[in-house]
Amino acid sequence: MRRTMANFTSLRQLLSVPATATLHAPIEVWLERRAPISVVRTMATQPQSQNRAAPRCLNIDNLNPNIKVLEYAVRGPLVIRAGEIEKELEKGVKKPFNEVIKANIGDCHAMGQVPITFIREVLTLVTLPKLLDDPRFAEDVKERARTILKGCRGASVGSYTDSPGIEIIRRHVAQYIERRDGIPSDWQNIIIGSGASDAIKNVLKLLICDVNCKQAGVMVPIPQYPLYSASLAEFGINQVSYYLDESTNWGLDIAELQRSITEARKTCNPRAIVVINPGNPTGQVLSRENIEEIIKFAYKERLFILADEVYQHNIYAPGSKFFSFKKVMTEMGEPYSSMELASFMSCSKGYMGECGLRGGYAEVINMCPEVKAMYLKAISAMLCPTVLGQVTLDAIVNPPQKGEPSYESFIKEKQDVLNSLKLRAKMVVEAFNSMEGFSCNEVQGAMYAFPRINLPQKAIETAEKQGKQPDVFYAFELLENTGICIVPGSGFGQQPGTYHFRTTILPQPDKLKVMLKKFAEFHTQFIKKYS
Amino acid sequence: MRRTMANFTSLRQLLSVPATATLHAPIEVWLERRAPISVVRTMATQPQSQNRAAPRCLNIDNLNPNIKVLEYAVRGPLVIRAGEIEKELEKGVKKPFNEVIKANIGDCHAMGQVPITFIREVLTLVTLPKLLDDPRFAEDVKERARTILKGCRGASVGSYTDSPGIEIIRRHVAQYIERRDGIPSDWQNIIIGSGASDAIKNVLKLLICDVNCKQAGVMVPIPQYPLYSASLAEFGINQVSYYLDESTNWGLDIAELQRSITEARKTCNPRAIVVINPGNPTGQVLSRENIEEIIKFAYKERLFILADEVYQHNIYAPGSKFFSFKKVMTEMGEPYSSMELASFMSCSKGYMGECGLRGGYAEVINMCPEVKAMYLKAISAMLCPTVLGQVTLDAIVNPPQKGEPSYESFIKEKQDVLNSLKLRAKMVVEAFNSMEGFSCNEVQGAMYAFPRINLPQKAIETAEKQGKQPDVFYAFELLENTGICIVPGSGFGQQPGTYHFRTTILPQPDKLKVMLKKFAEFHTQFIKKYS
Repeated sequence: MRRTMANFTSLRQLLSVPATATLHAPIEVWLERRAPISVVRTMATQPQSQNRAAPRCLNIDNLNPNIKVLEYAVRGPLVIRAGEIEKELEKGVKKPFNEVIKANIGDCHAMGQVPITFIREVLTLVTLPKLLDDPRFAEDVKERARTILKGCRGASVGSYTDSPGIEIIRRHVAQYIERRDGIPSDWQNIIIGSGASDAIKNVLKLLICDVNCKQAGVMVPIPQYPLYSASLAEFGINQVSYYLDESTNWGLDIAELQRSITEARKTCNPRAIVVINPGNPTGQVLSRENIEEIIKFAYKERLFILADEVYQHNIYAPGSKFFSFKKVMTEMGEPYSSMELASFMSCSKGYMGECGLRGGYAEVINMCPEVKAMYLKAISAMLCPTVLGQVTLDAIVNPPQKGEPSYESFIKEKQDVLNSLKLRAKMVVEAFNSMEGFSCNEVQGAMYAFPRINLPQKAIETAEKQGKQPDVFYAFELLENTGICIVPGSGFGQQPGTYHFRTTILPQPDKLKVMLKKFAEFHTQFIKKYS
Repeated sequence: MRRTMANFTSLRQLLSVPATATLHAPIEVWLERRAPISVVRTMATQPQSQNRAAPRCLNIDNLNPNIKVLEYAVRGPLVIRAGEIEKELEKGVKKPFNEVIKANIGDCHAMGQVPITFIREVLTLVTLPKLLDDPRFAEDVKERARTILKGCRGASVGSYTDSPGIEIIRRHVAQYIERRDGIPSDWQNIIIGSGASDAIKNVLKLLICDVNCKQAGVMVPIPQYPLYSASLAEFGINQVSYYLDESTNWGLDIAELQRSITEARKTCNPRAIVVINPGNPTGQVLSRENIEEIIKFAYKERLFILADEVYQHNIYAPGSKFFSFKKVMTEMGEPYSSMELASFMSCSKGYMGECGLRGGYAEVINMCPEVKAMYLKAISAMLCPTVLGQVTLDAIVNPPQKGEPSYESFIKEKQDVLNSLKLRAKMVVEAFNSMEGFSCNEVQGAMYAFPRINLPQKAIETAEKQGKQPDVFYAFELLENTGICIVPGSGFGQQPGTYHFRTTILPQPDKLKVMLKKFAEFHTQFIKKYS
């Protein structure tokens, strides 16, 4: 008999995961929530139910085990349920709310942020070059489009580019970095990807060790952005967790790094360290001194540094400033300035928020030349990153300059977004800190708050009875009662016994006010119910 | 002392590959050709040469071994050299030719193919929605753009979409398949990717086996498109090769499949079979009977079928017709109609050739529901395929219909491309068959010819002295003497002792004539020199 959902008493059994293995909440509930069940139902109506049906080659028992344990909470069961609720609302199902507010993902335009005109106009002209003659487009937009088209084979964005991207765009990225850091950047070190996620995975996979060797390990912060845990799980690389210190605004304590790596060395071979600055989900901005300490630690422990710097434009707190790892490392001089580093940047965040266009890059410095040749070879099999993602990146790293016709409006649009985000960062933190049982660190940068929440013992017990982690339970209750979709802290990792969640600061101010009010009301009722 | 290129006597040593392992030519010459050396030089000028430099964490000895052996000939050392030659020509270096003709890659627009206006106009309107009011765009274009924007969160292509793609576009894909096959297609089985390559890799990776089990194997045709060999190498999956029969126009012989799998079972666990139809690099179009035989074989051997059908629009030969695996399988009835199948399609080929926009999809049928849930979970960590790639796909699967304003011009543009390709397919085959020592099968479909070439013994010996495979030697000679860039057969695989190469049929007719003439002249001289 073919296994079906109904034959399983638990997801662990379904996934053939040993009872001793640690699973984070989202995967626990992945199949137990309703969304995949709709998939199951769909499939059940197919010919598989007939007697003569072909036996399945690929089933849950012989599926790639790394895919089974991989998880990505930002798009997990809560979000799937949120999508279902949206459809229910469309169909007229009565709910205690009229709309779902998706505060789970840094999806700027989805939350009403308006695209930057300059970026979209450059994209338009490269897509339909006959508009290059249209007087409604400014000269600087046309100049950007012409330059890019000259870099495209056959002058078409429909041609493949070199696998690391179009040369002129890589050169513009390098110039952007030079302006940012005041330090030379070699365009041949710029590897463009279809989004930063793509660029990150392409570097991480270099670190997988031979099956005959000790398993590779990569240090990641906890809480972390789950692309890292998901990719490490997929690649069979050990996740070596180091905790950020909530009591010092998610500071990165070197003693904790040391504890973490010392323990990890007993079981794996730590090869790299990921640092996310500004922090996701935690919103802190690292000080220059802290970055220096991390670099010294990485040097001492011979770790390749992966600096996730996709929020480099999103700095809000007075006194906070973005320092790139490359700048700090280079200014520290030898031996630090020759350490291997990959720094990542994205078109999806910042003031532009062009998530759907999938543009991003890695600047990879001091990589062993032989390794670099292999890295370039490996990405070549995927042909090239999306050209329109590359064009988006170009418009970002080569924006209108003073004196150019699009300059004033570009700056205004950019500043409006950043000023509004700054305001919202403050609103969110103040709102949470005014709620009973909540504490929330300052959102110095990025796009998220990661407040801590004290859950009543009765709520914890109820959650456990339902086989849910307490923060997952809370998040589902919040969703079903208010339509607000957040991500439980267990999806990012948190100190055992503590509970958090991540919310974006992206709803537009009016909607954000409503959301925070509804949140506070829900929380009051929740506490009352479970006290 | 740090290892450098100069310390190595061979690439095998550099890559730590045992002398007994089989390496195809392109990887043999990868680092020995000039391109990566320019990288090496660049890096050598960096602080690494100083005494106090940091030791490297990641070097060729501890690099992911799968990345070392991975190869992708379509973008290999020959192509890198071709790029260098282009730069040399720009700088005024004298050569026996004025331009490089890149016949190595199916890059349509790069070879002068003009983008389809309808596709580009839809892309334009979703990118810059204020143009929706512009009277210069036709109503059907606007309707497509509006429908897509309605499916985007915040009505922006800059928002993330669901990981398998925008629902309305998945529905349009399913409708396209229904029209094509006359068989129902469930939109929830459509998984859009950033190009077919992305979609293919996402399915292949499901098949990786637990380290404690026998290694997974996947059957691939030889010659094959090297995305498969590259991906299998990356994933540590055994490539189980079956030879196509050149003497029957690259027919797929079941006895050969049987031989191949029987042999493979001694060392691995074959789990799936890849079939490329129309063939790449071989250009054959499988008959319905042949497809039925393959399906029966896959059923008997319990293999998941991966049908690479990206050239389904590119059928040229009289009497050849495209049959999808899904159609044939479904019409065969049970048990075949419930077999697991993933069929792949792309925006990069066909009449549209939008390679750079990275759109493609997989239709995955009869997949175990639990596996499908895991598959969807795994792709969610990469957020979503590029939205503009998805939009391109939508324009392709939902083209103008009779009566709509863009219909006439769309059909004309489409037919012009396909008619011209048909003509060129014939030109190429006739030209090669008229050359001494060449034989070339009919190009029934796709975009390539894969002629066989008899090389003189003296040429083979000269190649061996240079440490090159004979076909690689020939291709480099051709490139350096004529500027024509092709891919040696060893990059795709070929019967031992035979030599081939792949050339696209994509140069525009005038240029193609010039190319074939130059090719013939070169070949005459080559034969003369080495006879």
